[in-house]
Amino acid sequence: MINREAVLHIPRSSYSYPYAERGFCFRIRTAKGNVKKAEVMVGSFYGWEKRDTFLMEKVATDQLFDYFEYLYDCRADNRLAYCFRISDGEEELLYGENGFFVEKDTDVDHDRTDFLFFKYSTINPADIHRKPSWVGSANFYQIFVERFCNGDPALSPENVQPWGTEPTRSNFMGGDLPGIIQHLDYLQELGVTALYLTPIFEGGSNHKYDTIDYGAIDPHFGDEKTLRELVEKAHARGIRVVLDAVFNHCGFYFPQFQDVLKNGENSPYKNWFRAKEFPLSTNPTNYESFAMGPFMPKLNLSDEGMRSYILENVEKWTRCGIDGWRLDVADAVECVFWRDFRRVVRRVNPEAIIIGECWWNSDAWLRGDMWDGVMNYPVERPSELYFARGTISAQDFAERVNNVRMRYTRMANECMLNLLDSHDAPRFINLCGGDKRRLKNAAAFLFTYIGMPCTYYGTEIGMTGDNDPDDRKCFDWNRENWDMDLWQHYHKLMVLRRDNQVVQYGDVRLWAENEMLVLRRFIGMGRLFRMSVVTVVNNTEEDRTVSLENAGGMTDILTDEVFPLADGKVAVTVPAMSARVLKTNPLF
Amino acid sequence: MINREAVLHIPRSSYSYPYAERGFCFRIRTAKGNVKKAEVMVGSFYGWEKRDTFLMEKVATDQLFDYFEYLYDCRADNRLAYCFRISDGEEELLYGENGFFVEKDTDVDHDRTDFLFFKYSTINPADIHRKPSWVGSANFYQIFVERFCNGDPALSPENVQPWGTEPTRSNFMGGDLPGIIQHLDYLQELGVTALYLTPIFEGGSNHKYDTIDYGAIDPHFGDEKTLRELVEKAHARGIRVVLDAVFNHCGFYFPQFQDVLKNGENSPYKNWFRAKEFPLSTNPTNYESFAMGPFMPKLNLSDEGMRSYILENVEKWTRCGIDGWRLDVADAVECVFWRDFRRVVRRVNPEAIIIGECWWNSDAWLRGDMWDGVMNYPVERPSELYFARGTISAQDFAERVNNVRMRYTRMANECMLNLLDSHDAPRFINLCGGDKRRLKNAAAFLFTYIGMPCTYYGTEIGMTGDNDPDDRKCFDWNRENWDMDLWQHYHKLMVLRRDNQVVQYGDVRLWAENEMLVLRRFIGMGRLFRMSVVTVVNNTEEDRTVSLENAGGMTDILTDEVFPLADGKVAVTVPAMSARVLKTNPLF
Repeated sequence: MINREAVLHIPRSSYSYPYAERGFCFRIRTAKGNVKKAEVMVGSFYGWEKRDTFLMEKVATDQLFDYFEYLYDCRADNRLAYCFRISDGEEELLYGENGFFVEKDTDVDHDRTDFLFFKYSTINPADIHRKPSWVGSANFYQIFVERFCNGDPALSPENVQPWGTEPTRSNFMGGDLPGIIQHLDYLQELGVTALYLTPIFEGGSNHKYDTIDYGAIDPHFGDEKTLRELVEKAHARGIRVVLDAVFNHCGFYFPQFQDVLKNGENSPYKNWFRAKEFPLSTNPTNYESFAMGPFMPKLNLSDEGMRSYILENVEKWTRCGIDGWRLDVADAVECVFWRDFRRVVRRVNPEAIIIGECWWNSDAWLRGDMWDGVMNYPVERPSELYFARGTISAQDFAERVNNVRMRYTRMANECMLNLLDSHDAPRFINLCGGDKRRLKNAAAFLFTYIGMPCTYYGTEIGMTGDNDPDDRKCFDWNRENWDMDLWQHYHKLMVLRRDNQVVQYGDVRLWAENEMLVLRRFIGMGRLFRMSVVTVVNNTEEDRTVSLENAGGMTDILTDEVFPLADGKVAVTVPAMSARVLKTNPLF
Repeated sequence: MINREAVLHIPRSSYSYPYAERGFCFRIRTAKGNVKKAEVMVGSFYGWEKRDTFLMEKVATDQLFDYFEYLYDCRADNRLAYCFRISDGEEELLYGENGFFVEKDTDVDHDRTDFLFFKYSTINPADIHRKPSWVGSANFYQIFVERFCNGDPALSPENVQPWGTEPTRSNFMGGDLPGIIQHLDYLQELGVTALYLTPIFEGGSNHKYDTIDYGAIDPHFGDEKTLRELVEKAHARGIRVVLDAVFNHCGFYFPQFQDVLKNGENSPYKNWFRAKEFPLSTNPTNYESFAMGPFMPKLNLSDEGMRSYILENVEKWTRCGIDGWRLDVADAVECVFWRDFRRVVRRVNPEAIIIGECWWNSDAWLRGDMWDGVMNYPVERPSELYFARGTISAQDFAERVNNVRMRYTRMANECMLNLLDSHDAPRFINLCGGDKRRLKNAAAFLFTYIGMPCTYYGTEIGMTGDNDPDDRKCFDWNRENWDMDLWQHYHKLMVLRRDNQVVQYGDVRLWAENEMLVLRRFIGMGRLFRMSVVTVVNNTEEDRTVSLENAGGMTDILTDEVFPLADGKVAVTVPAMSARVLKTNPLF
């Protein structure tokens, strides 16, 4: 019997959305292992009689559910009526907006059947979530600016410490924009195609998440001219530049906040923040702020003056040629603001990416009107448990990651910033207890999964670090200290990501087999001609073998080993605690 | 065992939303009859240890599911972490963003548990869906302007027909704004508190859904001065005025479209519409239009010129003092436009209502950034089947209506335009085969259910009419022809709605008992002191009795019969094919 309670489809959501103007993605969820066949029946809004039926593919399985999808060609008519037909081999049901019904219910008059179906009234181009065209090949590299390279000692703060000093919450090492400019060749050599810089606007701390002037580059990092030079030189090397911005709150010494602190209700900026009463008091705090305590006053972006101040600066920096924004604590900020923000940014640069920081389900912000993607902590978390700590199985991992992917549209998944660590988490190698094999396994997954892989500066050379502030050490520019095996691993994966269209645009299947994790990316017209990249991770201490269905033989891009096709299958042995990234050999 | 696949909670949706700045509504869905007890555990974002647990109430049951809700007081902290605890009497599970877990999982370190919960990062006032304060008492009355009253024959078209002529798709009867002004006393007498006028902007047809000038009142209806007079005089009688507008398409003779038809790519308006190529051709049609055929060209609201033209006129008419907009074919229009539209309208009048025409699940538009409510056809449809045709049972009806209500937030449900018929449907009395008792039953439900009841002009006097154009007959102003029994029924229900806070703001429970439909509205602090209005509909041909739990005895507002409280219950007999609307008698 079909498990009716498990069936889910939500109109105008990640279950039903236009993709890139020509396609329309239908998704339906059913109980795990319950439904054998799912079809979508699509008719015109103005003529259900002329409907077509399409077989859906099972694209993912999580802890409780299977997910089926079909990508429909909507160019002929942008007004859709549809329902689903599902079968478990014994019974067959139709499923529409008002629940389940059977085929003969559609034989009555139009006026009545109209209510049986789901509708997508009109696909309006203005409402389609448009991703930047470059996300597929994006190899992000996150730079904590104060710790990457001190390129111009003249800019350093007075109390700068010698490069390589142990980081504390408050010390300075002198990293700056010139330091990044000087190492663009290195980043290009590694295979990086996009930078995400932690905040560069004037702030009081070493991390600069406490902005004091949204209109100025921090003088210890450089100035507007330095930023323009960085952008220009990065672009010349095929590297994009994404800036980090904090619009949820400002630093305590933001002058307009100080003005309110001093002048209370008489300040022209009194509505720029969230005072509960005047005068402001820091203890107890009587205004809203980030986390606890008085030091990061929350901005009131509903105030027209504050909103204009921020958006004018957003426009100014976007006009410097940057390629997008990473937005701090973005889920705590007004949605009405994000919509304005997107409009301003995309008007200046239609190819700019907008990445929110939101550690939870972010579906509400990823419908095309606010952000493109988020920092993908919900995938980072099971990565830690599976690859690093080994406390969950390959199957658990696949199910959890599938669950997260199925929260979102394909566009959102392609715009995810996938990461293993960041300035807000211990370095992944530390989570692995120093076992580099586990980090390499995680990276093999990261670079071949859907979404934009992001490498935290120095991971590729074996940098270690515990939680903040230890995860913000100085990059060691002495190559003799580098782990070149790890570097080569990252380099190969980055080159694959940068150059391989299957990894960039392919469909995704992720599952566990013989206690190994199998990730298949593919592009193809029908099963037989599918070009695949398959990542197989053996995160156990024994060698394991899997037999892969494939269109042709495959080559491991990490070792150059070739695996032939035999009886329509490719047998692949993966040594203990390692991963293979296999590419279909040319078919013709 | 708990049916895990049935459990649903969607963060930042109608399952999780702020209500009126002080409350936060949590909703969870479970399999019908499966879960005995549901609780929500709410902690601070920054300290889950200080969590509180609240018992949720079962608020609705539909075909497959139960729904539980709790309205949390969020004034102390606007940043929430939460999860649900559900029990079927045998097992107890916690449910969070990553699925099910058990209580002990929350005993580990913060960093890890963080991922177990749902989050609502910050309740930002700017993102709260604000409904107009007057929706609770709104008794809407829809007027098809051309057929209500010919108040100024001098305005009538040359080819006007005698009042009362049988309507055709193209004839004119001369109804106008002065005709409405002349009958405001009548509408006030009936109990009407809000008018929804079909379009009054210049158009070619009798229905004016084919706009020719968005900046002008149709000369056969009056002019701007007449509109202002109508608004002023209506307001003086406590009646609000909502205008209908068509922004999806224009009329074929819209001059800017005619200009493109004539001048093609050389027209300054070439991007105001959706040409697939130039020159435009009407046969075959090579531009997008409403429904089929060339006559209603779709507007391109992404074009800055078109957008400004429309929004300037929206602002102009909103400034005339009107109380809101009803939006034709609203689900086919760009969402980005609706967000601008809302901003313009609400800036001029923060108490204006915005009602979309969307016949399907409209949840995507009802999050506070676009519309407030919709014409509630998904409730009209089962009303037809249950009340009028008797083809579904009271239980079917309750389940279908509960299902529709559970698609939306409470704000959206309060802003629904609930209707039995309109200019786009046969009159309900015709669907009843002329059986007035069925219409009266439907009305008893309509006026006591959550949302704004809307009476199609003349229903209260017994006007009949089949589908368009027959549903657009002239109002008969000869009172001798009126069905005064029906009129009194409507009048009593309108007075209740206008004056009774329980009906206006109360919670909702809707179920079937003894083959009758029972609707309870209530406001109360705890079970014992709840003030209720209970509607019991007997839509069968036998007398039936139900025993109601209540805080006190009750009085039927339709017949003034009193039903005493005995053993904590009120026994109510409802004669065949009739309804009672019972009000709790004063308790003290």
